[in-house]
Amino acid sequence: MSGDKFRMKSGDKNALVGRINFILEADKLKTIIRNTLLTDGSRFENAAEHSWHVALAALVLFDSAPVKGMDLPRIVNMLLVHDLVEIDAGDMLCYDSVQIPVQKAKERLAAERIFNLLPDSQADMLRQLWQEFDALETPEARFANAVDRLQPLLQAIRTEGKTWRQHRIRKDQVIERMQPIRTALPDLWGDVLEMIADAADKGYLIK
Amino acid sequence: MSGDKFRMKSGDKNALVGRINFILEADKLKTIIRNTLLTDGSRFENAAEHSWHVALAALVLFDSAPVKGMDLPRIVNMLLVHDLVEIDAGDMLCYDSVQIPVQKAKERLAAERIFNLLPDSQADMLRQLWQEFDALETPEARFANAVDRLQPLLQAIRTEGKTWRQHRIRKDQVIERMQPIRTALPDLWGDVLEMIADAADKGYLIK
Repeated sequence: MSGDKFRMKSGDKNALVGRINFILEADKLKTIIRNTLLTDGSRFENAAEHSWHVALAALVLFDSAPVKGMDLPRIVNMLLVHDLVEIDAGDMLCYDSVQIPVQKAKERLAAERIFNLLPDSQADMLRQLWQEFDALETPEARFANAVDRLQPLLQAIRTEGKTWRQHRIRKDQVIERMQPIRTALPDLWGDVLEMIADAADKGYLIK
Repeated sequence: MSGDKFRMKSGDKNALVGRINFILEADKLKTIIRNTLLTDGSRFENAAEHSWHVALAALVLFDSAPVKGMDLPRIVNMLLVHDLVEIDAGDMLCYDSVQIPVQKAKERLAAERIFNLLPDSQADMLRQLWQEFDALETPEARFANAVDRLQPLLQAIRTEGKTWRQHRIRKDQVIERMQPIRTALPDLWGDVLEMIADAADKGYLIK
C-alpha cells in the first residue's frame, strides 16, 4: 500500500485504512496555532501539543479533585480529542464572545467530517468524548475543562501576560474564564486568584 | 501566588506547587525537535505533539490488537509520558545505534529529575509508566511501542522520505525498526511492508 492509497475511499470505512486516514488527518492539529505562548516565550503553542499538555496535567492533578470516583481515562481521552474540530474550525481568542455561536457551528461540521473518517465504532467513541467535553454536564467534563483553563493561565503568567497585553484583556475577564477551576479544583482557586491579582498589579491585565 | 513562586522549593513536594512546577516543566517538551516532518512538510515535529499523536492513535488502533484484555488507559498514559525524559536527554536519530547506551543513561538521570518535581505518589505513577514503556515487557508497552513506530513511518511516507534520504537510511533499517508492529498490530504488517517496499522503489530509502 503506498502512502497515496491512504486517501479516503468510500467502502473502506470499516477497514484499517479509515483509522490510518484519521491518524494522518489528525496531524493537521499541529498547525493550528493558539493564542498562548510557550513558557520560554519563543513561539505560540499549537493545539496538538496543548492537547498533550492538558492530558498530562489531568493525570497529575486528578487526585486533587474533590469529586471522587471520576473516570480518569475518560477525562484524558476527552482532552486528547477536545480540539480536533479546530482542524477545520480554527482556534479563536477565548475572550471573543461575539464569535462563539459561529465557532460552535463550525465545530459541529468539523466533528462530522473528521470523526467520520473512522470506522463507525471509533467514530462514535470519539464523537461522544468530544460531545461530553463540549456539554460540560458530567464531573469528568468539568474537570477536563478546568485543566484546559489552568494550563494557558500558567503559561500566560510565565510569559508576563504578553498576549493579554496585546489583546487588552481585563482582570475580570480572566477571573470569569477561570471559574471552572473554582469548583473542579478548589484547592487551586486561592492561588489562581492571587496569580491573577498579581498579574494585574504588574500591568499584565487591565484592572 | 506569583508565577515566580512556582519555582521548586524543598518542603513543597507534597503540595500542589510540585504539580504546577511539573506542568510548567513539561512545557519544555514542546521545544524538543524530532527527525519527523509534519505531513505538510512545513517543519519537524516536536516531542510534545508527537506524544499527543501517538496517544490518540492508540485510542483508535486499540481494538485491532490481537492481544485482548489489555489496559488501554495504561497504554495512553505511557504514551503521554514516554518522551518526557527528552527534556533533558534530547531526541536522537532512531537509526543511530552507537548512541543508544549513552542516550539511555541520560534518560535515567532525566527521569530522576523530572518526575521528582512531583509529590511522591504522582512521581511514582509517572516513573512506573515510563519504566514500563521502556522495558517493553508487558503487552501494553509493546502495543504502545508499535504505535510509536507507526506514526513517524506514516509521516515519513507522506513527506516522500525526505529525512530518510537526508540520513541515507536503508530499507532494511526501516523494516527492522518497524518489527514491533509485526506482533502488536499484525493486521497492519502487510501494509507496512508494502509501504516500505514502495518507498524504496521510489528512492526514498536505499535498497
